[in-house]
Amino acid sequence: MKEHLPALVTLLAVLLMFGTAFAVGLARGRYGIQAPATSGHPAFERAFRVQMNTLEATLLFLPTLWVAASYGYASWAGIAGLVWLAGRTWYALAYLREAARRGGGFLVGMVAWAATLLMALAGLGRTLFVG
Amino acid sequence: MKEHLPALVTLLAVLLMFGTAFAVGLARGRYGIQAPATSGHPAFERAFRVQMNTLEATLLFLPTLWVAASYGYASWAGIAGLVWLAGRTWYALAYLREAARRGGGFLVGMVAWAATLLMALAGLGRTLFVG
Amino acid sequence: MKEHLPALVTLLAVLLMFGTAFAVGLARGRYGIQAPATSGHPAFERAFRVQMNTLEATLLFLPTLWVAASYGYASWAGIAGLVWLAGRTWYALAYLREAARRGGGFLVGMVAWAATLLMALAGLGRTLFVG
Repeated sequence: MKEHLPALVTLLAVLLMFGTAFAVGLARGRYGIQAPATSGHPAFERAFRVQMNTLEATLLFLPTLWVAASYGYASWAGIAGLVWLAGRTWYALAYLREAARRGGGFLVGMVAWAATLLMALAGLGRTLFVG
Repeated sequence: MKEHLPALVTLLAVLLMFGTAFAVGLARGRYGIQAPATSGHPAFERAFRVQMNTLEATLLFLPTLWVAASYGYASWAGIAGLVWLAGRTWYALAYLREAARRGGGFLVGMVAWAATLLMALAGLGRTLFVG
Repeated sequence: MKEHLPALVTLLAVLLMFGTAFAVGLARGRYGIQAPATSGHPAFERAFRVQMNTLEATLLFLPTLWVAASYGYASWAGIAGLVWLAGRTWYALAYLREAARRGGGFLVGMVAWAATLLMALAGLGRTLFVG
């Protein structure tokens, strides 16, 4: 196993998901939203959407990261992963404050994800059609 | 790495998730549902449920696909994956139009998922008990 | 592939997610909650939160399980995975009955997840810094 950078990025992505789940727990306490409710205060609802959107983004990202890594792009996909982590962390921190500020980090995350997707498709295509 | 078909299916599953997320974004604009709200118009709510159900189904499917592939069923699991993709795409397109139409694609996806689960269990069982 | 226990744990985690999704379907029928609605009766809302929280916990767990397994902790991570499965099953069954009972199983699941995370970090750190 040479894919240390994708492995590190994977663990950091898991910790980012954990952090966004933790923020929801804090918001439950602060605004008195008892489980299983998922609404009741705008700041809680933002925290909940940050968690869900982070989860959705991670589920798009980890498979493309690892397909890219397994086709020989472990380092480049890992570097794209660090950019993705930076973008998604920015997104989470900004959106927790104000919904309107979520665009910048979201865009960085999307571009980094698209880079891993292109690497995965390039690696797969090269293997299938070039051999 | 010989699991090219599971890798292709994985990337297509990621693109399907991306497509259902994109449909939610379009519905936000069309029906004026500002984030972080996730309700307010039946068509938006259908798009949102399609996204979430696709995410749930993908999280059931990708692990069984790869366990099956790693126990020697890469080709058969990949073929079941193509059927899964067809079923889940049908489900998404039908549900976006009308909730009552979601049954057919859902069923195809479930059967294809069950096939990958059986392959994974068979491969694991054969390895553990037959050697 | 020597990671049979992590593979078994992965399939059981998928079946646990399937079980919690099935419980939501049953609750839809029993309390007459038509899709795409996700509220309307406390027991349905508990079932829905159990499903979502199980999905979130699984997405934290499977990546750390496999990174730990790939860095030489396949057996220990697999054993932590069996504990995680026990905790998450307890959580699901208890929360379906009453929201206040969800703490014990949640805690067991968190501790087992933290164990796989520590193994993954230890394995990665040992490889990078010790060689």
